[in-house]
Amino acid sequence: MSLTFNEFYNGRTGLTVGVQKVLFSEQTPYQKVEILETDTWGRMMAIDGMVMLSEKDEFVYHEMLTHVALFSHPHPEQVLIVGGGDGGTAREVMRHQSVQQVDMVEIDEVVIRTSKEFLPDVGDWGNPKLNVLIEDGIEFVKNIEDPYDVIIIDGSDPLGPAEGLFKTDFMQACYDGLKDNGVLTAQTESPWVQDYHKSMKQVFAALDDIYEVSKIYLAYIPLYPAGMWSFAFASKGANPLSQQAMQRVEQGLPTFGSKLNYYNEDIHQSCFALPNFVADII
Amino acid sequence: MSLTFNEFYNGRTGLTVGVQKVLFSEQTPYQKVEILETDTWGRMMAIDGMVMLSEKDEFVYHEMLTHVALFSHPHPEQVLIVGGGDGGTAREVMRHQSVQQVDMVEIDEVVIRTSKEFLPDVGDWGNPKLNVLIEDGIEFVKNIEDPYDVIIIDGSDPLGPAEGLFKTDFMQACYDGLKDNGVLTAQTESPWVQDYHKSMKQVFAALDDIYEVSKIYLAYIPLYPAGMWSFAFASKGANPLSQQAMQRVEQGLPTFGSKLNYYNEDIHQSCFALPNFVADII
Repeated sequence: MSLTFNEFYNGRTGLTVGVQKVLFSEQTPYQKVEILETDTWGRMMAIDGMVMLSEKDEFVYHEMLTHVALFSHPHPEQVLIVGGGDGGTAREVMRHQSVQQVDMVEIDEVVIRTSKEFLPDVGDWGNPKLNVLIEDGIEFVKNIEDPYDVIIIDGSDPLGPAEGLFKTDFMQACYDGLKDNGVLTAQTESPWVQDYHKSMKQVFAALDDIYEVSKIYLAYIPLYPAGMWSFAFASKGANPLSQQAMQRVEQGLPTFGSKLNYYNEDIHQSCFALPNFVADII
Repeated sequence: MSLTFNEFYNGRTGLTVGVQKVLFSEQTPYQKVEILETDTWGRMMAIDGMVMLSEKDEFVYHEMLTHVALFSHPHPEQVLIVGGGDGGTAREVMRHQSVQQVDMVEIDEVVIRTSKEFLPDVGDWGNPKLNVLIEDGIEFVKNIEDPYDVIIIDGSDPLGPAEGLFKTDFMQACYDGLKDNGVLTAQTESPWVQDYHKSMKQVFAALDDIYEVSKIYLAYIPLYPAGMWSFAFASKGANPLSQQAMQRVEQGLPTFGSKLNYYNEDIHQSCFALPNFVADII
C-alpha cells in the first residue's frame, strides 16, 4: 500500500507528501488531529487535513512567529501564547533570557498530548517557565487580569475553532491584555490563497485601527500552501525596525546557545518587505 | 475524467495542479514540452514534467530574474538571455528604456513556437529590440564577439539539456562575454530540494571564484518546489545594494508604464537576506 497525504488550496492545487504510517488519528471535540510518519519530513501533524508542522520544517514557522515579536519588545518577561499546543512556539520564546513566564492557552488537550508523545523534540515541556492551560484562548484573553508583555496567536486556520482569532473583538481584547510596551504577533495565512484574503483584510484592518503600529511580514514555509506564509506584527509603539530592536537582535542571538536555522538579523528586517501583490491584498 | 499534474521533489513530496485539458505535448530532440490548461493558474508550461511557468504566477520568476540585474547595471544596453524561450524574461528586460537590443538564445524552437501559440501574453514578441536565435546557448556564449552589459541565464533544471549551464566553464565564458561593468543573473533552483544542493554549491563556488561580486537571492514562487526559489547575482564590480543601484530602482520603476506585481525597491534589497539554512548550503 502506498500512502500519501494531500492538502488542496486554490481548487485542486495542493501539496502531496509521501506517508509511511499513520501514527495517530482522532476526531476531538474541536477538530481532527493526525500524526503521520512521512518519507522525508520526519513526523508531521495535520489538523482538519491541513499541515500544522513537520519535524523538518517547523523551525521556520516557530522562529518567525516568536523572535520578531520578542526582539521588538524592550524587555519581554510575561508572554501569552494562544494555541501553540505542539510546543514549538513556547520553545523559541523561552530562549529569550528576559522571559520569566510563558502561559500557553490551548483549547484542545489532544494536541498537547499527541505532541508530547509523537513530537517530543518540538516542545521544551520540562522548562519551569512554561505554564500550560487547557482553555478557550478567546475567553482567556477577555479575562486577562495581569497584562502581558507579548501575546502570540498561534492558532490554526480561520475555518474551524480558530475562526474567532481573526476577529476584531479578539484583536481588541489582546490590546487590552497587553502592557504599555506590548507586542503581538499572529499567523495570518498564505497570501497566495484567495479564500484567506477576506480573513487577512479583516485582521489587518482591525490591527491598523486598534494598535499604534501594525505590519505584515512573510516567511518561506515549504509545507504550507504555496510556500509563502504571512504573519501580523502589532504593538503599542514598539517598532521592529528601530535601531534599538536591531541592537537587541544582535546582542540577543548569541545568548541562544545554538544557532537558529532560519531567523537572523537580516531576516528580521527583510521579512517586512512585501511583494506588490501582497501589499495590494491588505 | 479528472486530470491532475503532479511534480515530485524530495521523494514523494510535491505539487498537484488540477488540469482541464492537455493543449500540447511533444517530445522534442531536447526535452518533453507540455502546455496544460489548469483549473486556477491559467495555462501552464511543463518541461520534462517540471513546471516552468503558469500565466498566473510567472510574474514572480520573470520580474526577479531580470530587474535585480538590470537596475544593478549603470546603463544596460545590450542584453543576452540564454534560454528564456517562453518570452517572459525578454518582456521584463525590454521595460528598461536604456536597453537597445536583447539577444535571446534558445536551444529548442518548440518552446518558442508553443509559447507564441498558447501563452501569447507572456512574451513581447513584436518588440523590435528582440532578436531571437535558435542555438545552443553554451556554444553561443563561448563565441561572443561583442560583449554584453547583462547576461541572464534562464534555463531549465540542471538535469536535462540545461546541465551545462551550472558548470564552471560556462560561468567563465559568461564572464568573458560581459563588458567591464557586466552583470549576470541565473536561476539556481530551490534550496529546499536536497538533490539541487550539489549544483547550487558548484555554481556559487564558480561565481565566487570568477566574479568580483557574487550573491544569492530568493523569491517566493508558488508552483516551484517548496515555493522558494534561488537566483545567482554576479558582476564585475556592480553592487546591487549600492546607493546608486537603489537610486536607479527608484527612478526607473515609474518609467515602466504599468506597476509590477512582485518586484519593488524593498524587494530589491530584502531578497538578498538569507535564512541561516540557505546560507549554510553554499
